[in-house]
Amino acid sequence: MTESISFVESFKQTQYQVAGNGKRNMQVLKEVFEQVDGQQESDIYGNGQIIESFQEKMATYLGKESAVFFPSGTMAQQIALRIWCDEKGVKKVAYHPLSHLEIHEEDGLKELHHIDTVLLGDEAGLIGLEDVLNLDQEIACLLLELPQREIGGQLPDYKTIVEISEYCKANGIRLHLDGARLFEILPHYQKSAAEICGLFDSVYISFYKGIGGLAGAILAGDKEFTQQSKVWKRRHGGDLISLYPYILSSNYYFEKRISKMELYYENAIELAMLFNSCPSIQTKPTVPVSNMFHVHISQPKEQLEAVLKEVYYKTGVGLTSYLKETNQSTYSFEVSIGDQYNSIPKDKLDEVFQLLKVKLK
Amino acid sequence: MTESISFVESFKQTQYQVAGNGKRNMQVLKEVFEQVDGQQESDIYGNGQIIESFQEKMATYLGKESAVFFPSGTMAQQIALRIWCDEKGVKKVAYHPLSHLEIHEEDGLKELHHIDTVLLGDEAGLIGLEDVLNLDQEIACLLLELPQREIGGQLPDYKTIVEISEYCKANGIRLHLDGARLFEILPHYQKSAAEICGLFDSVYISFYKGIGGLAGAILAGDKEFTQQSKVWKRRHGGDLISLYPYILSSNYYFEKRISKMELYYENAIELAMLFNSCPSIQTKPTVPVSNMFHVHISQPKEQLEAVLKEVYYKTGVGLTSYLKETNQSTYSFEVSIGDQYNSIPKDKLDEVFQLLKVKLK
Repeated sequence: MTESISFVESFKQTQYQVAGNGKRNMQVLKEVFEQVDGQQESDIYGNGQIIESFQEKMATYLGKESAVFFPSGTMAQQIALRIWCDEKGVKKVAYHPLSHLEIHEEDGLKELHHIDTVLLGDEAGLIGLEDVLNLDQEIACLLLELPQREIGGQLPDYKTIVEISEYCKANGIRLHLDGARLFEILPHYQKSAAEICGLFDSVYISFYKGIGGLAGAILAGDKEFTQQSKVWKRRHGGDLISLYPYILSSNYYFEKRISKMELYYENAIELAMLFNSCPSIQTKPTVPVSNMFHVHISQPKEQLEAVLKEVYYKTGVGLTSYLKETNQSTYSFEVSIGDQYNSIPKDKLDEVFQLLKVKLK
Repeated sequence: MTESISFVESFKQTQYQVAGNGKRNMQVLKEVFEQVDGQQESDIYGNGQIIESFQEKMATYLGKESAVFFPSGTMAQQIALRIWCDEKGVKKVAYHPLSHLEIHEEDGLKELHHIDTVLLGDEAGLIGLEDVLNLDQEIACLLLELPQREIGGQLPDYKTIVEISEYCKANGIRLHLDGARLFEILPHYQKSAAEICGLFDSVYISFYKGIGGLAGAILAGDKEFTQQSKVWKRRHGGDLISLYPYILSSNYYFEKRISKMELYYENAIELAMLFNSCPSIQTKPTVPVSNMFHVHISQPKEQLEAVLKEVYYKTGVGLTSYLKETNQSTYSFEVSIGDQYNSIPKDKLDEVFQLLKVKLK
């Protein structure tokens, strides 16, 4: 019954999914616009009430002097690093070997901005204070990604960030926060966004991860910095005549989900524990520090897919739509908790993990 | 009565406006999404039915092998020029002194792509075949903007484009079309978009000029070219997870207005004639060759504003919201005809120009 369809198809047929906020379909924008006043004016090339008020709101939330809305984080972060490099006259920055800029942006930073990079720390771990102290090259900026997404969303302890921040400040190194998932780590640190951002010179946040919006990003810092970022936004082709579909949806889903980050975090801890109770399964981190974690399973792929398909079919609960080979016949997938987790009946979830325990033996 | 409010405010209070398709407000997007099926899936990073089918549709319309949707023309055109420069190993292109890339993009082409430019032809006129023949520097690409917006939307005769195209082909120069207003010139040339685009190696078109969409652009060419453009789109930060608000609105307003370009063109000719019948007024071009023209008025600014405010107040018809100083106490503004022109009662329009003739004497 389940063998005739593909793995991804079997996932698509499930009634419930453990991760995410639901399908990325047109309804996401329709829901926002059903309550928008059609007479409200568009933003025009970065100006107008609609963009300015959201920028101000986010600047306040992040405790920064100023904020600029960008269509994407890729654009915002390259620009942040470029500004800091130009300021110092040093075209070199440091970040984690699995930074978004290093592996997902087709080398935009190098190809467009001619900025060299130092890959700091071990691929499988976090950047530590030692790594920063041992830097043997002059850099203009250090980028920290909190949480470090590609290793399951791990976090340094707060003290480490403070120490790195102090060191950078004392040594003329700008510190930039890749806060694509900043909202999602606040419950773990028990800090406000402004407290964390206070340790950084510039900050980028995203609205389509935990917030579940359409797309869009905010880059924040002092006024001189954001003013320069607007010039670069124009150069990148990001200063659209109208960005309001992204601004309005970012604001709408920010209001809808910002207070749920604590819940997502607790859900992630619970779900990771369930995964870790199964043979051959280990999550990274073992105890999540945000709404996300990675699930690693040591099983041959064919066998694993068959087990998961059976689970999906029998319980109607989908765990993942893909399996990524990590190393030596270990397969992994990412889980980011959103609204969907809480819609799964508890007995369904129990059934999933009872079945997994039996089948993965 | 009219003196107490600003010029722009007096314009905003008019019931009718001669130019454009109406207010740039949220209704523009709401109208599109009222009929969209919420269950339709989003595009995901440039993939998915919604983006691929629109790209194919536009490739066919333009007679090109392939097309890529971009958030902006600024991004699309820089990328086109970069690809042609890299292909030839020559980082130099030529375009008109008032090209969008030269005056509206904060030098993105130079700052991001390190491409040098040759400004071809006279600022007040069009690039002619002579200008191309007399090029004394090696260039990778020549960009032609049809119509040349900053001089009122002027066009060379079709034969000139053909000759320039043939010369470029014979001399290893890529020819790129800035077709931000390509739809709008088809009635004048009595050519299809594909016929015109056949003269160019790459083409950019926009969806928020005559089409009146939200934002967004298409870049078209052969497959190898568009494939490369996708890599650069990612580098620029334009490969958003969801571009569908722009794609759907582009498609919607394309369908709504593409057949009206002939009407807009005829309206522009009529309206320009009315302007030219007034003392102190001259349009550029005298007879429009698209839906647009510039209006130049030789009058002291204060006096001119007072006259226009009176016209707006008495007739309820707005002609422009701004006046730009051109030279020696000549002021100008741009008119691009859209849906609004035809909603103005004919007697209102007569009243406007009767009044202007008297007041500008």
